[in-house]
Amino acid sequence: MSVTAPRGFAASGVAASIKASGAPDLALVVGYPFGAIAGAATFTTNLAAAAPVQISRTHLAATRGRVAAVVLNSGCANAATGARGLEAARRSAEVVAEAIGVGVDEVLVCSTGLIGPHLPLDRLESAIPGLVDSLGSTRADAARAAEAILTTDTHAKEVVVERDGFSVGGMVKGAGMIAPNMATMLAVLTTDASIGPAGLADALRLAVGSSFNELTVDGCTSTNDTVCALASGLGRAVELDELADALSEACANLAFQLAEDAEGTTRVVRVVVTGASSVEQARQAARAVAESNLVKTSLYGADPYWGRVLSELGASGAAFDIERVSVRYGPTLVFADGLEVEHDRPATSAYLSGAVVELLCDLGLGAGEATVLTTDLGPGYIDENMRTS
Amino acid sequence: MSVTAPRGFAASGVAASIKASGAPDLALVVGYPFGAIAGAATFTTNLAAAAPVQISRTHLAATRGRVAAVVLNSGCANAATGARGLEAARRSAEVVAEAIGVGVDEVLVCSTGLIGPHLPLDRLESAIPGLVDSLGSTRADAARAAEAILTTDTHAKEVVVERDGFSVGGMVKGAGMIAPNMATMLAVLTTDASIGPAGLADALRLAVGSSFNELTVDGCTSTNDTVCALASGLGRAVELDELADALSEACANLAFQLAEDAEGTTRVVRVVVTGASSVEQARQAARAVAESNLVKTSLYGADPYWGRVLSELGASGAAFDIERVSVRYGPTLVFADGLEVEHDRPATSAYLSGAVVELLCDLGLGAGEATVLTTDLGPGYIDENMRTS
Repeated sequence: MSVTAPRGFAASGVAASIKASGAPDLALVVGYPFGAIAGAATFTTNLAAAAPVQISRTHLAATRGRVAAVVLNSGCANAATGARGLEAARRSAEVVAEAIGVGVDEVLVCSTGLIGPHLPLDRLESAIPGLVDSLGSTRADAARAAEAILTTDTHAKEVVVERDGFSVGGMVKGAGMIAPNMATMLAVLTTDASIGPAGLADALRLAVGSSFNELTVDGCTSTNDTVCALASGLGRAVELDELADALSEACANLAFQLAEDAEGTTRVVRVVVTGASSVEQARQAARAVAESNLVKTSLYGADPYWGRVLSELGASGAAFDIERVSVRYGPTLVFADGLEVEHDRPATSAYLSGAVVELLCDLGLGAGEATVLTTDLGPGYIDENMRTS
Repeated sequence: MSVTAPRGFAASGVAASIKASGAPDLALVVGYPFGAIAGAATFTTNLAAAAPVQISRTHLAATRGRVAAVVLNSGCANAATGARGLEAARRSAEVVAEAIGVGVDEVLVCSTGLIGPHLPLDRLESAIPGLVDSLGSTRADAARAAEAILTTDTHAKEVVVERDGFSVGGMVKGAGMIAPNMATMLAVLTTDASIGPAGLADALRLAVGSSFNELTVDGCTSTNDTVCALASGLGRAVELDELADALSEACANLAFQLAEDAEGTTRVVRVVVTGASSVEQARQAARAVAESNLVKTSLYGADPYWGRVLSELGASGAAFDIERVSVRYGPTLVFADGLEVEHDRPATSAYLSGAVVELLCDLGLGAGEATVLTTDLGPGYIDENMRTS
C-alpha cells in the first residue's frame, strides 16, 4: 500500500517516454479528495540544487506548508538546466495543478536521473492527464507510483508503519550517490495523522536526521534529493513526538532498503561508534570509517582487516587514544588495549560474508554514540557508474 | 642515483625476511662518512601513528634536527603494536646506531606494510650488519634501497634534481591509502646543500605542502607516512627559497610517480580549480572533485559526465554560483553559463582515455586556485584491496 495506506491519499505511475527504455517514469501522489493538506519537505544542501528543488522550495515557502500533490519523474534530473529547466519544473507543477483544480504552488516537483539534459516537457504534459485519470488508492496504484520513480534501483521500495489511530506510508528511490545530507534519493511520506504544517516539518526533520542522513554509500550529495511529507488529517490528532517516532521508523526502514539496493552492493554495513567524546565526534568517526574506500573494499572481500578501521578512526578528527579503543566485527573482539586480540579469523571472515554486518568501535572516552549505515565497495559499483551512456 | 646523487650519502637495501616473499624489505640511507648531519621530517597527522613515527618524532626532537641515518622496512607497518612495537622501533634504531657509531637518537625509523603484526626484530637485527656492510654510493646502491621499501608498488620511484652547486635526490614508496595529509608513503630526500636543520625543516614543509599533500588517491591517511630530508652540507650554502624550490620539484616528481603507480590506477587526473573565493576554498572544491567515487569511476570509464563534477563542486562547501562556473575536460569546454556547452562527446571521451588527463573547474568568483592530483577508480583498486591475506 505504501503511500496510499493512510486515509486520504491517491497515487499513480505511468510511462511518459522520459526514459528511453519506455519504463514507467512519471508518478503522482495527491491528497484525496483533491485539495491542499499539510505538507513539509527537506531538500539537498547541494548549492547546485536542481530546478525542481528550487521550485518546490519556493512553492512550500509561498503556501507555508500546504501541499495538494507531488509530481515526480525519473529519467532526467532537470539539474544544471538554467532558466529553461526552472520553467519546465514550474510548468509541470502547473499542468498537474490545473488537472486537479488546485493552486500551482500547492504542487511540489521532484526529478531524478542524469544531470544536464532538459526535461522533455511536451511528453510530460501529454502524460499528465492519463496520470491523473489513473489515480487510485489501492496497493497496485501505490506500487505503480513507487515503480515510476526508480532509476538504477533494482526494485521498488515501500513501507507502511501502523500506529494506534494513524499510519505512515512511504516510498523511496535511491541507488548511487547516497550520502548525508542526504541521499540521491526522492522519498514521499504520507500520514493520516492530524497535525499542522509546522509540526509535520519538525517531525520530518527529526525523522530524516536519524535515518536518511545517517546513510552513506559513496559520500556524494546529489543535486536533487528531496523528502516530502503530507498529512491528510483524517486520522487522530498526534503529538510531535509520536509522529516523529512513526516517521523515523518508516524512514529508517526505507534507508535500510536503499542501502540494500545501492549500486553494486553485496552487503549492508552498520558502523556503530560508542564512547566518543561527543555525539558529533561519534558521527565524525563513524562516517570516516563508513566512507573509507579501503574499509569498504575489505568488507567486500569479507576481510577482517581491523587495521584500516583503526587508521580511519585515528585520522577522523575525533579525539582518539589507541590504548582505549576497541573494535569488534559483530560478536568478535579484534582489537583492545592497544593490541590485536586473538580471534578466529576464518569465523570472522564468515561473519563478514553476511548480507548485514556490524562494525563496532568503542573509543573509550565518553558517552557519544552514533550509527552510520553504509555498504561495501565492489566491482558492481564501478560497473554501474563507469559509463552513463 | 636518487638518494646517493648528492655528495655525502650512502644507501643499501637487503632482504631481511620481514616479507614472507623473501623480497628486499630493509633499506638504509646514511650521511657518509658516518656522522650526524642536518635532518628534518614531516609525519602523518593520524592519531593512530605507528611506533616508528613516534620514535622518529622523539629522536628528531631530542637532537634538534641532527640525523645520521634512516632505516626503513617494508612488510610490516609496526602500527597498533603497543609497547612492544615501540621497543622494536627503538631497538632497530639502536642496532643501526651501534653499527655505524652514532647516537641512537641520530637514527630515524620508518616502516610500511600491514597494520597489526609485530616486527620480527630478531630477523631485522640479524640483517643490519649486512645492510651496513653493503652501503655504497652508486646508482645500484640507491636503487636497492628504493626497491626494499616497496609494498604493493609495481616499481621503484626515484628522482634527482640538479641545481647550480647542489642537488637533491629522493626515493618514495606509495601505492594505496594516499591522501592529504599525507600519502601512505615513505620518502627520503637527500641534498648536499649547506643549510641548518631549521632551514631544512622549513624548506621540506613547503615542498611537501605543494606536492605530496596535494595528492589524493582514496582519501585515507595512513598510520605511517613519513618524509625525511637529510642535508650533508658538502655543496654550497643555499637560501631557503632555492632549496625549497629544488625539494618541491623533487617531491612533485615523486608525487606524480606515486599517482601513476597507485593501486589499480589506469590514469592520473589533475583537478585544477580556479576562480574560487580563496585558495582554501579552491583546495576544498578540488579535493571534493578529486575524492568523489562517482567522478573517479566515470574517469575510469572515460565518460565525460560533467554533471558529477558540477554536483561535487556544489556540495563541496566552497562558495558556488552555477551561473558563473565553467568545466573543461582538458581543451574541451563542457559547461558554462549554467548550461551544458555543445561538445564533441567521442573526442572528449578519447581525451579522457589518456594516461594523464586534466579536469579544469573555474568557479568564476575570485582569485583562489588549487591543483589536486588524483587517479581514476577502477576494478584494479578493488582487486588490490579486497583481501590482505
